[in-house]
Amino acid sequence: MAKRIGILTGGGDVPGLNSVIKGVTYRASEAGFEVTGIRRGWEGLTHVNLADPGSRNRYVLGLTRENTRTIDRTGGTFLHSSRTNPVKMKSLPPFLQGQEFPWKEVEKDGKKSITYDVTEQVKKNLKELNVDYLVAIGGDDTLSYAAHLNKAGVPVVAIPKTMDNDVRNTEYCIGFSTAITRAMDAINRQRSTVGSHERIGIFRVFGRDAGYTSLYTAYVTSVRCAIPEYQFNLDKMIDLLVNDKRNNPSNYSLAVLSEGAEWQGYEVQHYGAEDAYGHRKKMNVGEAFSDKVKAATGEETIVSDLTYDLRSGEADFVDKMVASTFAGMAFDCICEGKSGLMTSIVNGCYAMSEIPDPRLGPRKVDIATMYNTDRYRPTYNQKLGLPIFLTKA
Amino acid sequence: MAKRIGILTGGGDVPGLNSVIKGVTYRASEAGFEVTGIRRGWEGLTHVNLADPGSRNRYVLGLTRENTRTIDRTGGTFLHSSRTNPVKMKSLPPFLQGQEFPWKEVEKDGKKSITYDVTEQVKKNLKELNVDYLVAIGGDDTLSYAAHLNKAGVPVVAIPKTMDNDVRNTEYCIGFSTAITRAMDAINRQRSTVGSHERIGIFRVFGRDAGYTSLYTAYVTSVRCAIPEYQFNLDKMIDLLVNDKRNNPSNYSLAVLSEGAEWQGYEVQHYGAEDAYGHRKKMNVGEAFSDKVKAATGEETIVSDLTYDLRSGEADFVDKMVASTFAGMAFDCICEGKSGLMTSIVNGCYAMSEIPDPRLGPRKVDIATMYNTDRYRPTYNQKLGLPIFLTKA
Amino acid sequence: MAKRIGILTGGGDVPGLNSVIKGVTYRASEAGFEVTGIRRGWEGLTHVNLADPGSRNRYVLGLTRENTRTIDRTGGTFLHSSRTNPVKMKSLPPFLQGQEFPWKEVEKDGKKSITYDVTEQVKKNLKELNVDYLVAIGGDDTLSYAAHLNKAGVPVVAIPKTMDNDVRNTEYCIGFSTAITRAMDAINRQRSTVGSHERIGIFRVFGRDAGYTSLYTAYVTSVRCAIPEYQFNLDKMIDLLVNDKRNNPSNYSLAVLSEGAEWQGYEVQHYGAEDAYGHRKKMNVGEAFSDKVKAATGEETIVSDLTYDLRSGEADFVDKMVASTFAGMAFDCICEGKSGLMTSIVNGCYAMSEIPDPRLGPRKVDIATMYNTDRYRPTYNQKLGLPIFLTKA
Amino acid sequence: MAKRIGILTGGGDVPGLNSVIKGVTYRASEAGFEVTGIRRGWEGLTHVNLADPGSRNRYVLGLTRENTRTIDRTGGTFLHSSRTNPVKMKSLPPFLQGQEFPWKEVEKDGKKSITYDVTEQVKKNLKELNVDYLVAIGGDDTLSYAAHLNKAGVPVVAIPKTMDNDVRNTEYCIGFSTAITRAMDAINRQRSTVGSHERIGIFRVFGRDAGYTSLYTAYVTSVRCAIPEYQFNLDKMIDLLVNDKRNNPSNYSLAVLSEGAEWQGYEVQHYGAEDAYGHRKKMNVGEAFSDKVKAATGEETIVSDLTYDLRSGEADFVDKMVASTFAGMAFDCICEGKSGLMTSIVNGCYAMSEIPDPRLGPRKVDIATMYNTDRYRPTYNQKLGLPIFLTKA
Repeated sequence: MAKRIGILTGGGDVPGLNSVIKGVTYRASEAGFEVTGIRRGWEGLTHVNLADPGSRNRYVLGLTRENTRTIDRTGGTFLHSSRTNPVKMKSLPPFLQGQEFPWKEVEKDGKKSITYDVTEQVKKNLKELNVDYLVAIGGDDTLSYAAHLNKAGVPVVAIPKTMDNDVRNTEYCIGFSTAITRAMDAINRQRSTVGSHERIGIFRVFGRDAGYTSLYTAYVTSVRCAIPEYQFNLDKMIDLLVNDKRNNPSNYSLAVLSEGAEWQGYEVQHYGAEDAYGHRKKMNVGEAFSDKVKAATGEETIVSDLTYDLRSGEADFVDKMVASTFAGMAFDCICEGKSGLMTSIVNGCYAMSEIPDPRLGPRKVDIATMYNTDRYRPTYNQKLGLPIFLTKA
Repeated sequence: MAKRIGILTGGGDVPGLNSVIKGVTYRASEAGFEVTGIRRGWEGLTHVNLADPGSRNRYVLGLTRENTRTIDRTGGTFLHSSRTNPVKMKSLPPFLQGQEFPWKEVEKDGKKSITYDVTEQVKKNLKELNVDYLVAIGGDDTLSYAAHLNKAGVPVVAIPKTMDNDVRNTEYCIGFSTAITRAMDAINRQRSTVGSHERIGIFRVFGRDAGYTSLYTAYVTSVRCAIPEYQFNLDKMIDLLVNDKRNNPSNYSLAVLSEGAEWQGYEVQHYGAEDAYGHRKKMNVGEAFSDKVKAATGEETIVSDLTYDLRSGEADFVDKMVASTFAGMAFDCICEGKSGLMTSIVNGCYAMSEIPDPRLGPRKVDIATMYNTDRYRPTYNQKLGLPIFLTKA
Repeated sequence: MAKRIGILTGGGDVPGLNSVIKGVTYRASEAGFEVTGIRRGWEGLTHVNLADPGSRNRYVLGLTRENTRTIDRTGGTFLHSSRTNPVKMKSLPPFLQGQEFPWKEVEKDGKKSITYDVTEQVKKNLKELNVDYLVAIGGDDTLSYAAHLNKAGVPVVAIPKTMDNDVRNTEYCIGFSTAITRAMDAINRQRSTVGSHERIGIFRVFGRDAGYTSLYTAYVTSVRCAIPEYQFNLDKMIDLLVNDKRNNPSNYSLAVLSEGAEWQGYEVQHYGAEDAYGHRKKMNVGEAFSDKVKAATGEETIVSDLTYDLRSGEADFVDKMVASTFAGMAFDCICEGKSGLMTSIVNGCYAMSEIPDPRLGPRKVDIATMYNTDRYRPTYNQKLGLPIFLTKA
Repeated sequence: MAKRIGILTGGGDVPGLNSVIKGVTYRASEAGFEVTGIRRGWEGLTHVNLADPGSRNRYVLGLTRENTRTIDRTGGTFLHSSRTNPVKMKSLPPFLQGQEFPWKEVEKDGKKSITYDVTEQVKKNLKELNVDYLVAIGGDDTLSYAAHLNKAGVPVVAIPKTMDNDVRNTEYCIGFSTAITRAMDAINRQRSTVGSHERIGIFRVFGRDAGYTSLYTAYVTSVRCAIPEYQFNLDKMIDLLVNDKRNNPSNYSLAVLSEGAEWQGYEVQHYGAEDAYGHRKKMNVGEAFSDKVKAATGEETIVSDLTYDLRSGEADFVDKMVASTFAGMAFDCICEGKSGLMTSIVNGCYAMSEIPDPRLGPRKVDIATMYNTDRYRPTYNQKLGLPIFLTKA
C-alpha cells in the first residue's frame, strides 16, 4: 500500500503556506505517496470524529495535483487554521466528553483552570487515517506540539512560518518577506498624505515579542523604528522625529513601531468594557505614542495600523521560493526516514534543524549588530559575514 | 503684463490634486499666463507676511512647467494643505495680532469663543501677489470660502475633491475612484486571511456624513455595507453575516462600514484620558460592531481599518483623467471671464456648476435607488438612465 | 417551469467579463430563473452535440451562485471564448458534416471560398437547451451575430466589451478602463529605464482601427501619441520627440502608438517565411518607427510592446462597476420582455441602445475634439459638456 | 581635507541602484567624506572636459543627503548610465581627438578596427576631481574595467548588478529579485487571457548567456522553462506543453524562455533591412518557438515579451535590502583601506570577493542541481545545504 503523508497548518496564516501544501502534494504524488490534508490545524486531529461523515468531511481532505494546482496563487491557507494545542486543551471536544485524558491544573492571573492532553486521540486519528508521516507548518505553538508528537512516536517534519520571523533555529520563516513587502509599499504610498499635511506619521506593525518586522521595514524605508527588544527614551525619540521633520524639505517624518515596542516608563492603557474574561482592550502603542508626541510638541500626527494587510494577498518571490524549497526538503527528509526536524535556513543556507524548545521563547533581534540605540534606526554597517537576511539562527 | 493665476489646495489630500496643479500650470503657461502656487491652503493667504522673505518662501511658490513636470506621478498635494478657513479663524496669525478684523462670538458645547474673518487680509495678499484669478481645490470647507471670496470680489474658480464624493452639485469629486480602487484591493487581498481563520471581517472606511465610499466598495466586492444615511438593525445585520458565512464554502463573511455608520440604538463609546479640550477618543464603529458580533454569536472577527491607505499613492486612471479635465475646464472658464463656478460632472457630463451652499451640508446617498435596506447591500437593479457613476448631482 | 437565460462571451477576453457572468447569474437566480453558460462563444452553439455527453460537457455549463461566487476576482472569461461567427463558418463542425446549410461564395485576396450559415443549428441547440433568452457579451463580431440571431427569432440582449472601446452606440465598453490602467502603470514604471539610458521610448498598444487606447493612455501620462485615425508626419513627430527629450532634465521622451497608427507614406513591412496561407509576419509599427527615429537622429530607442498585459489581471474599479451594472440592465431588460438591444452608455448615462450595424465599422476617435494634430497629443481644452469619458456614442 | 568618494553606475539599469547611491552618500557624509557622482557610467570619466563648465555640469554631480533623499523610491539610476568601456573605445571623445592614447587593432566578423585605451585620461580626471576612492556599480563590463582601473592605481570597490544574476564570485546581483517579482506578476496576471482562449503561452525574458531569470521565474510559477545552458529537444518540449494543456482543466499551458535559449538544431532567423553595420534584426526565440508549436500542433499560441518591464519600477524588498547592505559594505571596505574587491554573497553570506576575471565569461546555471533536463523545468529536490538563493558563487 502507498505511504501516506498528512499535512496541516496551524496558527496565524501567512502568504506562502499554499506553496508548501502544493509543493508537498506534487512531490509526494509524483513519488507514489498519498497526501491527506488535515483541516483547521491541530483541531482537525483533536475534534474530528472519523465515524461521522460530516465531521470527517469538515476536517479531512485528500490532496491531489488537481485540487492544489492553483492554490499557490492566493495567500492564506487552503487547509484553514486554528490555534488549538492538543496538550493544552481548555475543554474536551464535544465528541470526546466523558472520556479519560491526562489533565493538569494551571494557574494564570491567580485563576486556576484545567487543561487536557489529547495526544492519544491525535495518534489514534492519525493511525485510522493511515498517516505515516505528518508535515506540520506553523509558528512557535504549532511547532512545539509537532516536537511533542514526534517524541510520542508519530514521525513529524516541521516547517516554520510567521511574519514575525521569530522562530528559533532558523533565520527565515515563511511569510516574513511578504510582510516587509506589504509594509514597505504601504509606508511609501502613505508618504504623500503625511507630507501634504506636514505631520509625523506613526506606523504600527505586528510583533509582540520580536522586532524583525519593524526593523526590516525601517531598513528599507529609511525611517526610525522601535522594537520590543529595546525600551526607547521617549523624549529622545520625539526629538529625533521633530528634527527629521525640520530637516525634510517636505516637512514630515516617520516612525514604525512593533506592537510590542515600549518606551522607558511606558504603561499599557486599557479601554472599553470588560469582556467575559474580565479583559479590557489594550490601547495600541501607536496611538499611545501619538498622544505623547502631540502633547510634547503640538505637532499633528497620523497613526496608521498595518496589521492584517501585512499577511494579505499573494506571496512575494522570496516566500514562494522558500516555501517551495521547504516543501521539497520536508519530503526529501521523509524519504530519508528522518523526522523530528524542522526545515530552516542557517548561516544563509538551507538546513534541517532541531524543532526549537518552546521554553526558550521567541528569537529576538540582536541589538548589538542590528539596532542603533543612539539613533533608533537599524545599523547599516559591519554586515560582512552575516547571512543574506542579516540575522543568525 | 501677463495675467496671473493663483492656485491652492485645502482640506484633506487625495491622489489627483497634483494632476490639477500640473494641468492648470501647463495650460496657463502655454497661453502666456503666470501661475503662483499658494502653499498650505488658505493658510498661505492668511498667514503669509509678504514683506518677510522667509514667510514668502514658506507660503508662495511660482509654478512652471519645469517644477510641476513630474508631480502628477505621486499622490498628495505638491502645494501641501491645511484646514484653515479665513472666515472662522480661532486666533489671528502672529503677524496680524493687534490689527482689527471682523469677529463674532460662537458657541459650541456650551462654550463661547471668538472667531475672526481675515478676508480683507486675503484680498490684500492676493493683490500684492498680482493674482488675477484664483483656482481653489478642496472639499466642502475650502469650497465654501471660495464662494465667499468670489462674492468679495476675487474671481475664483473651484474644483471639488474628496474621497467621500459628497460635495453637492457634482456627481464626482477628485479622489473618489482611487479611494474605491484602494479599498477594493485591500478587501480582496485580505479575503484569504479572513477565510483561513473562518472569521467575520469588518472593514471600516472614511465617510462621516455620506456613505459613497462604503457603498461603492461594497458594489464592486459583493459584500454587505453600512452607511451613515441609514441606521441598520443590529440583529438583522449580524444574522445576514452569519448566514453569509455559513453559505460560503470558505466559511467567512465580510462587511464594510462607513465611519459614520450606526445601528438603531447605537451610542458612540469613548475611551482614554481627556485631552486639553476635554475630549476623549471615540471608539470606532468597526470595533464597536465587532464587539456586538462576538457577544451575539461567539464568532471570531477581524476589524480592518482602511483609512489613510485610501488616500495614499498615485491617482488611478479615472482620477487622473477627471483631474486633467477639471484643470482644463477651470482654465477655459477663466479665459471666458467667468468665475464663482465649480467644475463638476452633472448627468454624466462635464459642467460648470454653482459652488454649493455650505448650509445644505454634504450630498447624501439616495437610499431609494442605491441602498437595499432589506439586505444591507447596494442595489443592482434599475440603473437605466443613471449617470455612469450611478448617482445624481 | 422556470425561465432560462443562456450566456456566452465571444472574441478577445477582457477583465470584467466575469463580473457580468456573475452579475447575471446572481440576479437571475434570485428571481427564480435558471442560467446556462455556453462555453467558447458561439462555438458552443455551433459545435455542441447535445446527444453526446462529452460534447455537452465541453460546451454547456449550468451556472449557479456557488460556481460563480469567486469568478469576478480574476480576469479573462470563466466561460472561455472563441472567434466563431455562425454565419461565416469556413467549414462545418465535424458533427454536422453532410448536413445541408445555407452557404455562399466569398472572395478574399482573389481567392474564392465558401462560408456556411448554421443559424438553424444554433436555434435548434438553444431550443433543446430550453434557453428562453440569450445574453451575448463581446465586441463587433459577437454583437453583429447577436443582432442577426435576435432577428432570427431568439431574444438576445447584448453587452459590449473591448479594450479598444470602439463599439458604436456606446461611449464605453467593458475592459477599456483596465486597459488604460495597465498601460499607464507600465509606462510610468518604465520611465526610469528609458531615462537612465537617455533614450526615446516607444510604446505600442492594441488598436487596429481606433486610437482610444493610445489616446487615453497619452491623456493620463502626458506623452505624445499616434492613432489610426490620423496619419502623422514622420519628421514632425521625430522633431517633437527630440525636442521633448532636450527639454526634459532627465533627457528622455516618450510616445505611445496604436498598432494601427501610420505616418504619411508608411508601408507595412513583412518578415519571416510564408505560413500555410501565404502570409508573412507584419513588422509592428513600433519597431518600424524606432528604425526611422534611429536613422534620422542617431538617438537610441526602446520599443516596449504593451499587448496582452493590457487585458491581463483583475478588472479595475470602473470595469467592475460598469460590468455589474450592465449585467443588471441586461436582466432588467429581459424581465421587461425587450430584446435586440445592447447595454450602453450614452451621453454619460446608462442606456439600452440598438446593437450597432456592423457595416458601419468601428467607432473612431473624433479628431476635432480629441486629438491635437499639431502637437500629436490629446487636446485638454473645451471639454465642457462632454460625457465623463470624453467621447460621444 | 575631507576624503572624497566617487560613484558611478554602468551598463543596463536595474531597480536598486539608487539605494546603493543613497546608501553610500549617507554613510560617507555621516563620516565626513565628500561624495562625487560621476554621470553616465565610465563615459563621465572619458568624455568630461573639466575645464568646460557645461561638460562638467553634464558629467559631474556632487551628492548630498539632500539630493539623494528620495531617489531610492524609484527604479533606474539617478546618475544615468552608458555602456562605455575606457579600454575599448572605438573613437576618442571629441575633446581628446588629436591626443595620443594606447590603441590596438581588433578584428570582428572579418572586419578590422581600432580601439583606444583612455585609462590615463580617466585617472587624470579622477585626480582633478580629488576622488580618492571609486565605487563602481555594474555588470560584467563595468566590473572588468573596475578591476583594470584598480590595478592601474585607483582604489576601486565594485558592486555587482544585473537582473540576469550572472556575475561570477557572487550568488546575487542587485536587480535579480525585482526582475523575478515582475516576471512572476506578469505571468500570473496573463494566465487568464491565455486560459480564456485555450492557448499555449510563451513568455520571453532577458538572459542571453545565463538562464537564471527564466529558471527562477519558472520555479515560482510552476511552468516549463528553457535556458541558454541546455539545448532542449523541440518535439519533447512541444509534447510536454500539449500534455500540460490537456491535463489542465482550463486547457492552457505556459513556458518561459530565456532570450538565449535554443533547441537542438535551432538557427536564429533574421528579418528586415540591413542597418548601417550590415546587421538585420534577429527574430526572437519566443516567436520562432511559437511558429514551431503552431506548425507541429495546430494549437494557438500567445507570445509575450517580458523585457523592459522586468527592470522597471521600484526595487522590491530584497533588492532594497541587499543594495543598502552592499552600499554599507563598500563604504566599510574603503574605511579599512581595502580596494579591488567586489561586494558579494557567497554561501548565503555577505562577503568581499575578487572582482571576476572577464575572460571566464558569465556565471551559468548549474544544470545538474537546478534544471530537470527530462521535464524542462527547475528541480525541486535535494536543496539541503544550498544557499537561500539556491545557487553557488
